[in-house]
Amino acid sequence: MTPLPHTPSDLARFSINQQTVKQLTLPRLADACGTLGITQVGLWREPVRRYGPRAAARLLRDAGLTVTSLCRGGFLTATTPAERRRALDDNRAALDEAATLGTPTLVLVAGGLPDGDRDLAAARERVADALAELCEAAADRGVRLAIEPLHPMFASDRCVVSTLAQALDLAERFPAGQVGVVVDTYHLWWDDQAPAQIARAGRGGRIAAFQLADWVTPLPEGALLGRGQLGDGCVDLRGLRALVDAAGYRGPAEVEIFNPDLWARDGTRVLAETAERYVQHVLDPNAARNPPPRA
Amino acid sequence: MTPLPHTPSDLARFSINQQTVKQLTLPRLADACGTLGITQVGLWREPVRRYGPRAAARLLRDAGLTVTSLCRGGFLTATTPAERRRALDDNRAALDEAATLGTPTLVLVAGGLPDGDRDLAAARERVADALAELCEAAADRGVRLAIEPLHPMFASDRCVVSTLAQALDLAERFPAGQVGVVVDTYHLWWDDQAPAQIARAGRGGRIAAFQLADWVTPLPEGALLGRGQLGDGCVDLRGLRALVDAAGYRGPAEVEIFNPDLWARDGTRVLAETAERYVQHVLDPNAARNPPPRA
Repeated sequence: MTPLPHTPSDLARFSINQQTVKQLTLPRLADACGTLGITQVGLWREPVRRYGPRAAARLLRDAGLTVTSLCRGGFLTATTPAERRRALDDNRAALDEAATLGTPTLVLVAGGLPDGDRDLAAARERVADALAELCEAAADRGVRLAIEPLHPMFASDRCVVSTLAQALDLAERFPAGQVGVVVDTYHLWWDDQAPAQIARAGRGGRIAAFQLADWVTPLPEGALLGRGQLGDGCVDLRGLRALVDAAGYRGPAEVEIFNPDLWARDGTRVLAETAERYVQHVLDPNAARNPPPRA
Repeated sequence: MTPLPHTPSDLARFSINQQTVKQLTLPRLADACGTLGITQVGLWREPVRRYGPRAAARLLRDAGLTVTSLCRGGFLTATTPAERRRALDDNRAALDEAATLGTPTLVLVAGGLPDGDRDLAAARERVADALAELCEAAADRGVRLAIEPLHPMFASDRCVVSTLAQALDLAERFPAGQVGVVVDTYHLWWDDQAPAQIARAGRGGRIAAFQLADWVTPLPEGALLGRGQLGDGCVDLRGLRALVDAAGYRGPAEVEIFNPDLWARDGTRVLAETAERYVQHVLDPNAARNPPPRA
């Protein structure tokens, strides 16, 4: 593999969400990260459960990798008691898996409107009720629930929490150590309230995760798999990263792209490209190459 | 055709946007409206230009139809002087056409980000600059510019104005008689700020048009033609209509649906169905059937 034109410190905060390169098995992902100097990964429950959470935790620990987040819990908008209980049980299982992996963050996607339901405000209240039932279990396991606002185009079928302001309105009902929010460039790049809300999230210590993908058009059918590689779209990634930094966030920058074109390519090459794009489009070109000041 | 289970007063505010039944030529649309007791239509520039604006105006006047709006001007985000001049000229032509048709409202879609541009705030400022150049021409012609916020999924390629709040921030820089906003259920149903912003728009006399379509999923590729027939989706149409009423708006409720399934059917039947759906899903079931109080 060609040597990369970046220094290890450039990737100090970089994390690769495994969905970006889902063609790689966990062992191959761990190998590729080692080769490329990547030290952090975000994981998804399904591949982790297939591999076994304990085995996955061991594999990643042995490879020197930190798990920055587990995706995803949530889907908390059901109205029937049985569905609601099932959702809460599933989220408790997700918290167990997060604890096993040693990640501090379980990403929550709120869920959409049940069939025939037209009451978004009530659905958001059901999410708040569910958070109240889950936040102690989260605290017990040392895991923080991270509410992820999804783009408004997913409001009906996937996530009734559409803006960072709404996510914070929910999170702030609970202790900051138990419930935070996800700042994802793909979901909030369009929102002129995002800068103020990122500052609000930072002041409250609520930024549990910072995720990145670019916005490209045309959207594919269903809209879900249309995220762009960093730099391919119109999102001011550097500007949003600077806002998150200015808000006091010092955690990982996790790149999470759902894109069949990336999945069709060699996973290790896509991972290398993604790290390069991160350096090129996300880092501050001045600050990134500077060594830390001497004591 | 089966008699319709509604009274003429039920449709007093109903307007059919011609894109909903674009399979109908203007004369056939006028005929169908006459048969169904529909007295108002919203028009698009392309079919009007094909028919001829003067001929269209005469046809509709002779049929007793009022033109509630003309779609659309806008696309005002270009950066080069030549493109910018072309856009302004085109909007002046649209104002002429609106005046010829006798409609008080020209709907404006702001335009997206130019290729390679990542600065949404600057693009919105260019829209404001263009409004400043157009609003006198609008006033001269007795036409109001109506800024339509489009759903955030169109922010990059079609409309950098994504919320009613943003539209009002732009409109309020100009006299209310010259620049208003469009409240469209499809574009803002997801927004928890919409109720407060509808009230703000009403207080300022800024609601220039109220348009309706329902939200259905999955979105089709490109997202543009995925609007649902009234009642087929998850938008609280009645609730939004009540908010617009409470804000003091007394103008037309114009149904504008882009949907290939509707276009593939008999246009007159679709028109009849749309009027029925409006009565069923938009009107207040108590107030609608009550006769006005006697003096």
